[in-house]
Amino acid sequence: MTQPLHIVALCGSLRQHSYNSMLMHTALQALGPAVQHEVLPWADVPPFNADVLDAQGQPPSVQRLRERIRAADGVLLVTPEYNYALPGMLKNTLDWISRGADQPFAGKPVALLSATTGPLGGARVQNEARRVMLFLNALVLQKPEIYVGMAASKFDAEGRCTDEVTRGFVAAQMEAFQRWVRDVQRMQGGQ
Amino acid sequence: MTQPLHIVALCGSLRQHSYNSMLMHTALQALGPAVQHEVLPWADVPPFNADVLDAQGQPPSVQRLRERIRAADGVLLVTPEYNYALPGMLKNTLDWISRGADQPFAGKPVALLSATTGPLGGARVQNEARRVMLFLNALVLQKPEIYVGMAASKFDAEGRCTDEVTRGFVAAQMEAFQRWVRDVQRMQGGQ
Amino acid sequence: MTQPLHIVALCGSLRQHSYNSMLMHTALQALGPAVQHEVLPWADVPPFNADVLDAQGQPPSVQRLRERIRAADGVLLVTPEYNYALPGMLKNTLDWISRGADQPFAGKPVALLSATTGPLGGARVQNEARRVMLFLNALVLQKPEIYVGMAASKFDAEGRCTDEVTRGFVAAQMEAFQRWVRDVQRMQGGQ
Amino acid sequence: MTQPLHIVALCGSLRQHSYNSMLMHTALQALGPAVQHEVLPWADVPPFNADVLDAQGQPPSVQRLRERIRAADGVLLVTPEYNYALPGMLKNTLDWISRGADQPFAGKPVALLSATTGPLGGARVQNEARRVMLFLNALVLQKPEIYVGMAASKFDAEGRCTDEVTRGFVAAQMEAFQRWVRDVQRMQGGQ
Repeated sequence: MTQPLHIVALCGSLRQHSYNSMLMHTALQALGPAVQHEVLPWADVPPFNADVLDAQGQPPSVQRLRERIRAADGVLLVTPEYNYALPGMLKNTLDWISRGADQPFAGKPVALLSATTGPLGGARVQNEARRVMLFLNALVLQKPEIYVGMAASKFDAEGRCTDEVTRGFVAAQMEAFQRWVRDVQRMQGGQ
Repeated sequence: MTQPLHIVALCGSLRQHSYNSMLMHTALQALGPAVQHEVLPWADVPPFNADVLDAQGQPPSVQRLRERIRAADGVLLVTPEYNYALPGMLKNTLDWISRGADQPFAGKPVALLSATTGPLGGARVQNEARRVMLFLNALVLQKPEIYVGMAASKFDAEGRCTDEVTRGFVAAQMEAFQRWVRDVQRMQGGQ
Repeated sequence: MTQPLHIVALCGSLRQHSYNSMLMHTALQALGPAVQHEVLPWADVPPFNADVLDAQGQPPSVQRLRERIRAADGVLLVTPEYNYALPGMLKNTLDWISRGADQPFAGKPVALLSATTGPLGGARVQNEARRVMLFLNALVLQKPEIYVGMAASKFDAEGRCTDEVTRGFVAAQMEAFQRWVRDVQRMQGGQ
Repeated sequence: MTQPLHIVALCGSLRQHSYNSMLMHTALQALGPAVQHEVLPWADVPPFNADVLDAQGQPPSVQRLRERIRAADGVLLVTPEYNYALPGMLKNTLDWISRGADQPFAGKPVALLSATTGPLGGARVQNEARRVMLFLNALVLQKPEIYVGMAASKFDAEGRCTDEVTRGFVAAQMEAFQRWVRDVQRMQGGQ
């Protein structure tokens, strides 16, 4: 019997009730009860400064994130688009995590989702997120890509996704993601 | 007689003696004594959180930045490339500044420079910076583009640029930037 | 009295009745009768090959395009997105035009529009088109940006734009473009 | 015993003695005699036009390319950067190949290399090539990335790569690529 998968999730918005948080929970629920999941908090990650890194090493909040990501079978990255790019604070967290030869995204399966209140759904931020993940050598799931535009019309006051098309896409992506995680593990196991 | 130009500069690295800070000062000196300049500090800008913005408005550190940028004739943006993208904390500062109909980058002349220790000099981060500036409707100088690769070999221990080719490019860009600032002002003055 | 503006247009699709051609004509009509316009044909541009350029110089079809662009006050670039990027043949035409110190896009005002049958409207292709135009030092209008998604629902069988919101955006862009052309001319005239 | 791998290669330049052709042959030689390889000619691919596709289907030159790619274990894509983007004619070939549910890049291992006479080595064109390959769902090798800048100084008159560092990088990439091809095959075989 295979071990249950353990997936961790990072939401790019620090707002309490963001559409991206709603989208993240929609995805985590779509994974089903056989998959363990955990939302990684990162609001306490300090500003990245190479002088601080040199003098003190990585702060405890970053060390914890690195450990949680390293231990996970895969990572969900769910992010809004700010000014056609990644939210600065999410990028700051990735900047910290990236430092050191042992950076935990290397070879890690990642799924990418984005929600925006406008119609374009984050086409630009996903392009950037893939470029960052390429640098880190993470293995980002390719298809299906999920761009949730007009998000305000697709979630209710309790944060549930009310749009069936979106739910279907997210479910399909999470199914593809589980296969991807298993595939990568087999690949890396050299079997 | 024309007023002397007033240029403000943002450095994307928080490290004390970063190559990008050295590059920024090289550019500011190239502007010559007839141009006033000011380096804008932003290390104290808190994490962007839309809930905080909604509840408390922009923090004083961001308000000061917005005022300094609004009052300036142009902005130098000098940035390293972290993981093929903008440093998270610089982006966080831009995320704050961007909020509100009165965002100060609209119509503002901007010059872009980047330095990296690797050979590519920031080709990717400038692409992203231009996309962010497009969203903000800033008017980014196009040519010459300045990508300073192999930065460690181009500055001395005092932070002076020792590479004549680089100094020449920076001087040419700063000259083009002053013309650009004057051109934009004439354009916006409707003269 | 000012001279009437003369605008030339390039459509990125070679299909006879493409949505981008319909969008281009919508934009040209929005310019109004006081603006002269001309659609530049480019189907006869041969494959770019640097050996051919070295041996024979630019082919007549490219020379004509270069002259028409040089003589124009501004260029409309209206393009579909093929595989998240510029249509190869449109790019081939730009590759030819780009060769030589006298390339005609330098300093030329350009407006960018894209239409797609999917919902994203060409966010990626415009990003690429702006990068190409940056290389060529064209002066691309920034705002408003026009991304026409779901194009099949926005034009009728005669190619007329039936979507009022789209027509409004296009009209606003064409108005901004005329101002941009005049502004750039004043700027370049050094007045 | 495993079958010998069969790799096909596409060079983005149509020039006879292009640096990218030299780089492609450097890579093919690095694959060693145990790997079969084939350079795919594409100069005869006509301009993509959706009307032509609808009326006549794919032209024979494109059908041949699609068959060769489908039959191959992996594809090398070796390309210059024209105007910060893919050469139009290479993109035109990809545009043709991309049409149809049976497009042959889906799930196909791809390695990406670029050479430029300038110092940046194709950072921008690879970013675009990866985006196109994402659309096509090809599986592009991530590391090591190969950007050959200052190409004129790295190949001799016979087209041999004379730069040991470059040869080392290319050899390392081709080794990684063979592992990647085997890994993907195991993954797709569901073993």
